[in-house]
Amino acid sequence: MSDLIQKLQWRYATKKFNAAKVVPQEKVDKILEAVRLTATSSGLQPYEVLVVTNAEIREKIKPVAWNQAQVTESSHLLVFAAWDNYTTERINMMFDLTNDVRGFKNEGWENYRNMLLSTYPTRDAEINFQHAARQAYIGLGTALIAAAEQEVDSTPMEGFDPAAVDEILGLRAKGLRSVVILPIGYREVEGDWLVNLKKVRRPTEQFVTEVK
Amino acid sequence: MSDLIQKLQWRYATKKFNAAKVVPQEKVDKILEAVRLTATSSGLQPYEVLVVTNAEIREKIKPVAWNQAQVTESSHLLVFAAWDNYTTERINMMFDLTNDVRGFKNEGWENYRNMLLSTYPTRDAEINFQHAARQAYIGLGTALIAAAEQEVDSTPMEGFDPAAVDEILGLRAKGLRSVVILPIGYREVEGDWLVNLKKVRRPTEQFVTEVK
Repeated sequence: MSDLIQKLQWRYATKKFNAAKVVPQEKVDKILEAVRLTATSSGLQPYEVLVVTNAEIREKIKPVAWNQAQVTESSHLLVFAAWDNYTTERINMMFDLTNDVRGFKNEGWENYRNMLLSTYPTRDAEINFQHAARQAYIGLGTALIAAAEQEVDSTPMEGFDPAAVDEILGLRAKGLRSVVILPIGYREVEGDWLVNLKKVRRPTEQFVTEVK
Repeated sequence: MSDLIQKLQWRYATKKFNAAKVVPQEKVDKILEAVRLTATSSGLQPYEVLVVTNAEIREKIKPVAWNQAQVTESSHLLVFAAWDNYTTERINMMFDLTNDVRGFKNEGWENYRNMLLSTYPTRDAEINFQHAARQAYIGLGTALIAAAEQEVDSTPMEGFDPAAVDEILGLRAKGLRSVVILPIGYREVEGDWLVNLKKVRRPTEQFVTEVK
């Protein structure tokens, strides 16, 4: 079995965290670094991650997240917030950064920049946001694995009111919209109804089709 | 440095594959197993993965994917195809499977099933598809890491005409819509313009915000 498969077998959507156990900063940093490094479309990284430890703010988020206890009982609450739109400035920022880091301009790369500039900012903002949100899910998938590698539990959660979370965190003023949240921490085995239940997935033959 | 971070540093969006090198089935299976095991919203796994090795079909896909050579020169072409809608049958299928595997029915879980049944199938199909597509991106993020663990290269690609790919693979008849494709194989260092360039990501302070 690969390490990765073992990690994926180990993880589960934690229902009950031990509110007294704090994830060390070093582990949080490794999880965030994995998210930062993973792929996004055209390398634009069209989202940000907020790491909410402030207790008062988490108490405000809880009622707009179906009162799920993980929001306040986890060690850290990660909020994945996607760009609300692709703008000329944002696209140029990433292409300029790329040129800076690599130390040269390349015609093919500049043509690609111009192609994005002529298509993305002219599209409907909602289409752009939906595209950016998908990229955040690559980050979410990465964070789950990174947390498991650090033996940190996590719970991917879509069950919240994004507009309310945006309001609480002041995201819209930053051109961001919350997409998915991920409490991380340590499981409280007593009181977690899911921890001892079998992971259920469709059999491979109902999930994978070979086209030979 | 964690293993995962090393893998993420190693991987890149491969531009040129060695068309002669085939990924062993065992490695392909591990990549697919990691995707099968990762998380999805409510555990519904609302997508499937097609593994296209058929040369003729890949030649048909290439022109509807901006003629990108990876489509035909990679070893295997993975196509992530999301459910076109959440139906009563699909939701019941996953909840029934869960009850079968775990060997019991649970009132909380049945209430959750009923909540999904009363909300998802009544929503617009496009909203449901977009939600399912996001889950496929968790799988994509997982596949990238799983490939890197197996020292297999990969290229996440959105640059294709989904409707045309759906047509070529007969996806709509199966209630599926292509979302993202991932050629996997082995890099051909000669002729890959990206392989030796630095990976560019925004600095952590522009990607992560602490809310303390």
